[in-house]
Amino acid sequence: MKVTIVGAGAVGASCAEYIAIKDFASEVVLLDIKEGYAEGKAMDLMQTASLNGFDTKITGTTNDYSKTAGSDICVITSGIPRKPGMTREELIGINAGIVKTVASSLVQHSPDTILIVVSNPMDTMTYLAHKSIDLPKHRIIGMGGALDSARFKYRLAEALGAPISDVDGMVIGGHSDTGMVPLTRLATRNSVPVSEFIDADRLQQVLEDTKVGGATLTKLLGTSAWYAPGAAVSALVQAIACDQHKMFPCSALLEGEYGLNDICLGVPVILGRNGIESIVEIELDQKEKDHLQSSAAGVSAVNGLLDV
Amino acid sequence: MKVTIVGAGAVGASCAEYIAIKDFASEVVLLDIKEGYAEGKAMDLMQTASLNGFDTKITGTTNDYSKTAGSDICVITSGIPRKPGMTREELIGINAGIVKTVASSLVQHSPDTILIVVSNPMDTMTYLAHKSIDLPKHRIIGMGGALDSARFKYRLAEALGAPISDVDGMVIGGHSDTGMVPLTRLATRNSVPVSEFIDADRLQQVLEDTKVGGATLTKLLGTSAWYAPGAAVSALVQAIACDQHKMFPCSALLEGEYGLNDICLGVPVILGRNGIESIVEIELDQKEKDHLQSSAAGVSAVNGLLDV
Amino acid sequence: MKVTIVGAGAVGASCAEYIAIKDFASEVVLLDIKEGYAEGKAMDLMQTASLNGFDTKITGTTNDYSKTAGSDICVITSGIPRKPGMTREELIGINAGIVKTVASSLVQHSPDTILIVVSNPMDTMTYLAHKSIDLPKHRIIGMGGALDSARFKYRLAEALGAPISDVDGMVIGGHSDTGMVPLTRLATRNSVPVSEFIDADRLQQVLEDTKVGGATLTKLLGTSAWYAPGAAVSALVQAIACDQHKMFPCSALLEGEYGLNDICLGVPVILGRNGIESIVEIELDQKEKDHLQSSAAGVSAVNGLLDV
Amino acid sequence: MKVTIVGAGAVGASCAEYIAIKDFASEVVLLDIKEGYAEGKAMDLMQTASLNGFDTKITGTTNDYSKTAGSDICVITSGIPRKPGMTREELIGINAGIVKTVASSLVQHSPDTILIVVSNPMDTMTYLAHKSIDLPKHRIIGMGGALDSARFKYRLAEALGAPISDVDGMVIGGHSDTGMVPLTRLATRNSVPVSEFIDADRLQQVLEDTKVGGATLTKLLGTSAWYAPGAAVSALVQAIACDQHKMFPCSALLEGEYGLNDICLGVPVILGRNGIESIVEIELDQKEKDHLQSSAAGVSAVNGLLDV
Repeated sequence: MKVTIVGAGAVGASCAEYIAIKDFASEVVLLDIKEGYAEGKAMDLMQTASLNGFDTKITGTTNDYSKTAGSDICVITSGIPRKPGMTREELIGINAGIVKTVASSLVQHSPDTILIVVSNPMDTMTYLAHKSIDLPKHRIIGMGGALDSARFKYRLAEALGAPISDVDGMVIGGHSDTGMVPLTRLATRNSVPVSEFIDADRLQQVLEDTKVGGATLTKLLGTSAWYAPGAAVSALVQAIACDQHKMFPCSALLEGEYGLNDICLGVPVILGRNGIESIVEIELDQKEKDHLQSSAAGVSAVNGLLDV
Repeated sequence: MKVTIVGAGAVGASCAEYIAIKDFASEVVLLDIKEGYAEGKAMDLMQTASLNGFDTKITGTTNDYSKTAGSDICVITSGIPRKPGMTREELIGINAGIVKTVASSLVQHSPDTILIVVSNPMDTMTYLAHKSIDLPKHRIIGMGGALDSARFKYRLAEALGAPISDVDGMVIGGHSDTGMVPLTRLATRNSVPVSEFIDADRLQQVLEDTKVGGATLTKLLGTSAWYAPGAAVSALVQAIACDQHKMFPCSALLEGEYGLNDICLGVPVILGRNGIESIVEIELDQKEKDHLQSSAAGVSAVNGLLDV
Repeated sequence: MKVTIVGAGAVGASCAEYIAIKDFASEVVLLDIKEGYAEGKAMDLMQTASLNGFDTKITGTTNDYSKTAGSDICVITSGIPRKPGMTREELIGINAGIVKTVASSLVQHSPDTILIVVSNPMDTMTYLAHKSIDLPKHRIIGMGGALDSARFKYRLAEALGAPISDVDGMVIGGHSDTGMVPLTRLATRNSVPVSEFIDADRLQQVLEDTKVGGATLTKLLGTSAWYAPGAAVSALVQAIACDQHKMFPCSALLEGEYGLNDICLGVPVILGRNGIESIVEIELDQKEKDHLQSSAAGVSAVNGLLDV
Repeated sequence: MKVTIVGAGAVGASCAEYIAIKDFASEVVLLDIKEGYAEGKAMDLMQTASLNGFDTKITGTTNDYSKTAGSDICVITSGIPRKPGMTREELIGINAGIVKTVASSLVQHSPDTILIVVSNPMDTMTYLAHKSIDLPKHRIIGMGGALDSARFKYRLAEALGAPISDVDGMVIGGHSDTGMVPLTRLATRNSVPVSEFIDADRLQQVLEDTKVGGATLTKLLGTSAWYAPGAAVSALVQAIACDQHKMFPCSALLEGEYGLNDICLGVPVILGRNGIESIVEIELDQKEKDHLQSSAAGVSAVNGLLDV
C-alpha cells in the first residue's frame, strides 16, 4: 500500500504522520515544490519511528513525480491561501491551476490511484478534479466533512462534559463556514440524543462554534489548523486502504442524490478499496434540506468561477 | 496521570500529541506565554481525538500555572533560539532566566512533580534546574540522548537498508553536535553487530550524519525539527508515568558516575515512577571515554556562563 | 497503576492481555487457585510483549494475595458454572462463597482499590460484594452491560452491513438473557437512527440475537466466550485508570435511580478515577421501563437466594 | 489484504486476534473442521471490535475453502499432538496428511498466496509443503524462530531485570528443544552486550530456560501455549502484508546457505510483500555452527520419516 501526499506543509505532514502511526501502509511519499522541504519533513517523521513504534517508510521528494509511481492513494493538499488584494476569482484561478497540474501529474504516474482532494475551496477543487482528470467518479473524493464532523464532535463533547469518544454526530454540506450543515438533530452521546443532556440554546451554540471551527483556530494560532485536517485525511486513507467500508461525509460528485446534480458536496459515503463504494441518502428534515440546497447554491457559484 | 508541557511550539505540541495518542494519561496541559496559542494547539489536537482514537484530555492555557497544579510530570520546552548579533552569553542568560522562572512556577503548583528539561543548551539548562530548584536529583531529567539515539537509529537503518525497528543503538554525552557520543561500536541489527553488514567508512558516515542531525533538518526545513523531539519526550514521559523501568540516555546530575562530578550529561538511566531510578554505567573503550570527557568539558564551559 | 485479576481462565487472561496491549498500566497480577496456572498464563502473555509492543508487566501467582497488595483496581472473574444436578441455589451459594472470600482477601491487601465483579450471576454477585465488603458504593462495579452492548453493536453492524465502529447502541438491565434491555430505539449508525436502514423485524431479530449472545457462543464453542468479556472488562479498567469519564452501562447499587432501590442493575454510569463518578438517568419509553422493572424483579429474586 | 488461518484453536484464534488489533488487514478468515467452531471464535473476536477499536473483519467457516479464495497470506496451524501409544512415525504421517491436504486446498483457491506453516514438527511440515505444493520457495515460510526469539527475549529480560522492549536477541536453528540455537553471544540490552549485566552462568540459564520454553508452559497450563505463538505469526503476517522488510528467523528452504541443502531450518530472513525477500547469512562462531549442523541433522532425520 503506497500513499502519496502532495504538499508537505502542516496538513500534509500531519497526514503522513498519522498514516505512519496507524502502521498499515508500506510507504508514504511526501512531495513538495519547495526544495528539500518534503525531504526534511520525511526525515523528521522517520526519526520518530523508533519512538512511536511504526514501520511505514516515509520519504520526501522535491517535485519528482516519478517517485510517486504506483501509488494506491494520492492526497492533494497544495494551494495557496488568499492574500491581501487578491480577488476570490484570482485565488480560485491560481489554486485551480495548481490542483489540475498536480492531479494530472499524479494520475500520469499512478493511473489506478484514488484521489483525495483537500485543497481549498475544497468542494470546487474536487469538482475541478472530476472535470479535468480522467478517473471514474468513485475514485475522486473531497475531504471536508470528516474534519467538520470531528470539530462538531469536539464541540458536542465540550458542551456535554463528555469524552469525545462517547459522542457521535455528522456534518454534511459544503466545506465552508456558511456551507456546512451540522446535523444537530441526530447528535448522540452513547446513542442517546444529546437533547437529553443539553438544551436547544446550548446545542445551537455547538452548531455556531462548529461552523467557525477553522476560523477560530486561525485566530488563535495565527495560521490555519494542521493536526485535525491531517487526521481526517488519514482516516479516509485507512478506510480505503484497509477496505473498511466505513461511512464518512465526503465531497462526492452528485448525480441526482439529495436532488442535486453536477456538483461536489459533502454527503455520507461508504469508503472502501474502490474509493466511494456508495453514496448514502439519509432522511433530512425540511430545515436541513433547505440548508443543504443553499449550501449547494453557494458551491455552485464558486464553481462558476472555474474555467472548465 | 497529569502532564504539563510548557511551550506550545512545535516540540511541545508534538509531545502533547504523542502522549495523547499513546492514551495512558488522563490530562495534558499545554502552557504558553503567547495569548491563546496553547489554547489553539490544544483545540486542534483535541479535534483529532475522534479520528485518532484517544481519550486523553488536552487543554491549553496562557501562562496560568494554577491550571498545571498537581502535575505528575512537567516538561519545559521554553526558550529562545540564538538571534543575529546575540552573544552566546546573552543567549544563555536569557534562556536561564526563562527556565528558572518556568521551573519554579511549575514546582510551586506541583511540588511532587518530575521535571523534564528540553530547553537548549539542554545539559546546561538541566544543570541550572538542579541548582536552582529544590527537587531531589532523580526528579530532574534532561532530554537529549533519546532524540539523538532516535536519529542514530534512523541513520543506521538508512545505511543498512533495514527498517528502523530492526536496529538498535545509543548516543550518550552532551546534547550538541560536538558533544554527542554515538556508540557505533555497539550498534546492532536484530542483535547482530552492524559491522557484519556495513564497513567502517559507512559507519563513520552514520556517525557524522547523526551528529549534524538537528542542523540537517534546520537547513531543510528552515526551522528546527519538531516531530522527533516531541516523540522523544513522550517516550520518557510514558516510561515514567507507566513505571516501565526502561533505559534511555538522559542528562542526569552526575556524582562520580563515569568519573564525572557536578555536571549534567547524557548517560544511560533507568526511568520509572520516581524519575531516574538509577544511572547505568556501561563499559566504554578508551576512545569513547575520551570523547565523553571532552564532551563534559564542553558542557562545563557552557555551565560556567551560568550565574548560579 | 497496578491491576489485579482473580481467575486466570479465558476471561481473566484475555482481560490481562488487553490491558497490556493498551499499555497504560505498569503491572497486572493474575491470581488463580490452580497451582502454576496463573504463572503459566502470565508467562505466555509476557512472551507476546516483544511482538505486540507493550511494556506492562504481567505476573502470575497461585493464590498469594500479598502479591496483589496496593492494587488500584481489582477484577473478580472467579466462580464455577452450573453443573448437572446442581440447583440454582447451590450454585449461587458456592459462587457467593467464592466471591466473598476473594473480595475480602483483595480488599485486605488493597484497601483503596476499586472492585470490578464479573462472576455470575453478575448482578447478584455485585450486590453481594456491596453487602459484604466495606467499600464505598462507587468503588464496587459489576461488568455486564459493556459486554452486552458490544454484542448488541456486533449484531447491529451485521444487520446493517456496516463496520462495528460505525454503530452505537446500549444495553441496560440485568446481565442475563431475559434481564438485558437492548435499547433498539436509540441504536444509530454514524448518529443516524438505524431504522433508516433496517426495518422493525430485522431490528427485532438483532434484539433477539443479542439476548442469546452468550448462549450462542457457548453452543458454538462448547465453552463460554472468552475474548469479548475480557475486552469489556479491560475497557472499564482503562476508563477508571486513565480517569476518562466515559459512559458504560454497568451494574451499580441503585438508591432511587430509575425508581429502584437496594439492587445492583445495569444502568449507564460515568467511570473515572473514583470508580462510578455518577449514575446517568436517561429517558426510557414505557416498554423499556417495564422491561427494566421486570429485569429488576428477576435479579431481586436471585438476590433473595443470597444469605446476606 | 485478506488473510486465512486454518485451525481455530488457541494459536489460530490468537493470531486472528492480533492481526485484527493491529488493524492493517481488511479480512481474516478462520477455518476449522469442527462444526461451528471457527464461526464461534470469529464471533467472539468480532464482539471485541468496539472495545479494542479495530475494523478488520473476522469471519469463520467450517471447512469451506471457497471462503478463503483470494487470500494474500494463508497460515496453517492444523495438526494433532502426539497421543499415548502413537509412534513418532504415525504422528508425522497423520500431520503430514493434514498439512498436505490443507495446503493444497488453500493454494487451489488462492494461487498467489504466501503460506506460513505453524504445524508441528514445524521444520519438517514446512519442508513437506515445499515438496508437495507448487509455490515458489520464497512463498512458503515456517514459523518457529520468531516465537523462540520472543521467549529468549522474555528470559533475557527476566535475567536482566529489564523490560522486554529493552532487550534483543535471536534464536535460529530447528524449532524444537534440542534443535533451537539461541544466540546468547549476540544478546543485547539497548545495544549493550548482556554480558555487561549478567554473568555466563546466568546467561547459560537463560539459554536452558529458552530451550524448554514450550514445555514449561505445557507443564504449567496443562495445554500448549497459545498467546505467544499467535503473536509471532501475526508479526510475520504484518511484515509481509505491509512489506516491512523486517528480519525474522524463519524456517526457509536452504540451498547452500549456512552450508545446508534441501532442508527447511530457522535462519534470519527478510520478510516483505514477496514473502522471503532474502536469506541473511550472519557470522557464527564454531560452537554455533556445530549446533546449527546438529540441529539440521535432527530435522533431516525427521524429514526422513516423510513419504515425499
